[in-house]
Amino acid sequence: MDEVHEPLFVRACRGEPVERTPIWVMRQAGRYLPEYRDVRAQTDFLGLCKTPELAAEVTFQPIRRYGLDAAIIFSDILVPVEAMGIPLDYQPGPVLGKTVQSMSDVDALRIPDPVSDMGFVMDAVRTFVSGMPQTPLIGFAGAPFTLAAYMIEGGGSRHYAETKRFLYDQPKVARALLSKLARTVADHLIAQAEAGCSALQLFDSWAGYLSRDDYLSFALPFTIEIVEVVKAAKPDVPFIVFPKGAAACFPELASIGADVLGVDWLFPLDEVDRRTEGKVVLQGNLDPCVLFGPKENIERQVQRILNEALHIKGHVFNLGHGILPQTDPEHMGALVESVKRLGVRRVPADLQ
Amino acid sequence: MDEVHEPLFVRACRGEPVERTPIWVMRQAGRYLPEYRDVRAQTDFLGLCKTPELAAEVTFQPIRRYGLDAAIIFSDILVPVEAMGIPLDYQPGPVLGKTVQSMSDVDALRIPDPVSDMGFVMDAVRTFVSGMPQTPLIGFAGAPFTLAAYMIEGGGSRHYAETKRFLYDQPKVARALLSKLARTVADHLIAQAEAGCSALQLFDSWAGYLSRDDYLSFALPFTIEIVEVVKAAKPDVPFIVFPKGAAACFPELASIGADVLGVDWLFPLDEVDRRTEGKVVLQGNLDPCVLFGPKENIERQVQRILNEALHIKGHVFNLGHGILPQTDPEHMGALVESVKRLGVRRVPADLQ
Repeated sequence: MDEVHEPLFVRACRGEPVERTPIWVMRQAGRYLPEYRDVRAQTDFLGLCKTPELAAEVTFQPIRRYGLDAAIIFSDILVPVEAMGIPLDYQPGPVLGKTVQSMSDVDALRIPDPVSDMGFVMDAVRTFVSGMPQTPLIGFAGAPFTLAAYMIEGGGSRHYAETKRFLYDQPKVARALLSKLARTVADHLIAQAEAGCSALQLFDSWAGYLSRDDYLSFALPFTIEIVEVVKAAKPDVPFIVFPKGAAACFPELASIGADVLGVDWLFPLDEVDRRTEGKVVLQGNLDPCVLFGPKENIERQVQRILNEALHIKGHVFNLGHGILPQTDPEHMGALVESVKRLGVRRVPADLQ
Repeated sequence: MDEVHEPLFVRACRGEPVERTPIWVMRQAGRYLPEYRDVRAQTDFLGLCKTPELAAEVTFQPIRRYGLDAAIIFSDILVPVEAMGIPLDYQPGPVLGKTVQSMSDVDALRIPDPVSDMGFVMDAVRTFVSGMPQTPLIGFAGAPFTLAAYMIEGGGSRHYAETKRFLYDQPKVARALLSKLARTVADHLIAQAEAGCSALQLFDSWAGYLSRDDYLSFALPFTIEIVEVVKAAKPDVPFIVFPKGAAACFPELASIGADVLGVDWLFPLDEVDRRTEGKVVLQGNLDPCVLFGPKENIERQVQRILNEALHIKGHVFNLGHGILPQTDPEHMGALVESVKRLGVRRVPADLQ
């Protein structure tokens, strides 16, 4: 592949010098957009995930409206959980039809074949890529700890108390579950790359509930396994890990072979870069709630983050968490405009 | 005062060498105890806060059962909010009868007189101290940012989106509110010390929702104001700040004049000590959910934390957040027993 023609986002993920900081936003295809709500009105949430033309359509929407530097395929981290044999419903938060409580529950879970069991995701990927070949598309999956937490709690939770009780009471069963999830997730990510994704992201949404000790014991080893398997199969596809809230483990997370570390809004990027010793590109990290405030404050905080990122290994602009449904689409536009205007970098002449 | 006779907990807060790591637990007077539920059945939550004999009784309970090294007066961080003129109800989470939305709402808030408006707290303090004079009693209050968040949202919140919108849209009004809260809280803490408390703790429960930039702008200045006012009035009373989730600001928090920094369970204490340059004693930091697991894991994690704290300035053992209502009282007993057995330290001979 001719490197010069690779998209800005992909080059930034590789840590190459870029002419401007790229931007995409987690949950950019979502409820804050009226055109998303129009499509969503035609079907339920899982129906939208499972209808490739509609999933591709809502993936196109924020690119058309804002000219973002990357798209992320519309899907849900629980799609593989359903394919493993757990009935899934949204009311509107996810409600699982079964919980995992014992080794026999773990044994009963299937390791799905991504193409035959979740083919709709790969079909949506292909539909997007043929419709917008210039825009890099990100495939994604949930990390084993986060998926296991859903399977144990049966849905979201305030403290993840049952999940932790499970980890402490039945560590062997927990590791068997996490290991099965790691295989499922690795297969699913590889299939998305084969269908045409230009980058992959692993979301560990509940990582920030674990102490460093528990994260290193129950979450990190399975994330490492996934990165190793996926990188062996797809060495050229940038891999982004986003362990929300796991700042205590950033030093370890910088050395697992992922290209990019997603960062929530709590720590400034220059401090994260020091703690990761400049080993990874950072993605983030504006508080999604900043979009509720005035445009001047959006611009001021964008400038602050760009300043903090000026001397780090590389930077992909994003929010520190998914965009919230009640966000004004015009403020999302102000964010993208600010990053594109303020994020222009001087590239050394010999690299131009 | 003869320093030799000061209680273990108070000496540890001062950073003096101690013969054993002291332990108390946030929300130790609470729903996990059957004897608490018996008292609570006689009245509603606010009624319990406002009846000094009952508030003192539930404060005694965990000391009698576990022999903890400190008590914390039974009360609620929203007591001063009600005294400022906002009706308060618990269903069971707090529901405020009014929200603060404008400068005129801020102007309408009273700065309460702690003795005449919240005298029941000081009465409970006196009742405890006369009943258990050997056990040091901690007085407490909520930090201005956390109290302001309740006043703006009207209760708890998932993202504190309205609070942040308020900070960004109306920073002047927000600062007027935070400043009024700082005066109220400082007065309330001083009054508790005058009534007989041996230490004071400031809870900033929602600090971890703010970026470093926003915390430094909207939370830290008001915490500093409180520490300065209280320390000027009560220089010998140890002051504990507990800004849950504010790890990004620990370096600043170490230099505000507080004696002790409360730490949640995400970062190990040795790393926090490095980031605070050994300037403060640390309090924490076991994940409350560890108490749901088996006793062997409780003991293992206690030993880990004691090891991490071995060379820091000073250590008060605690959970990293309040004990959860569904905790088995026997597991709380196992925690206290482990800390008392494993936390014995060799004090240099010349300090004995």
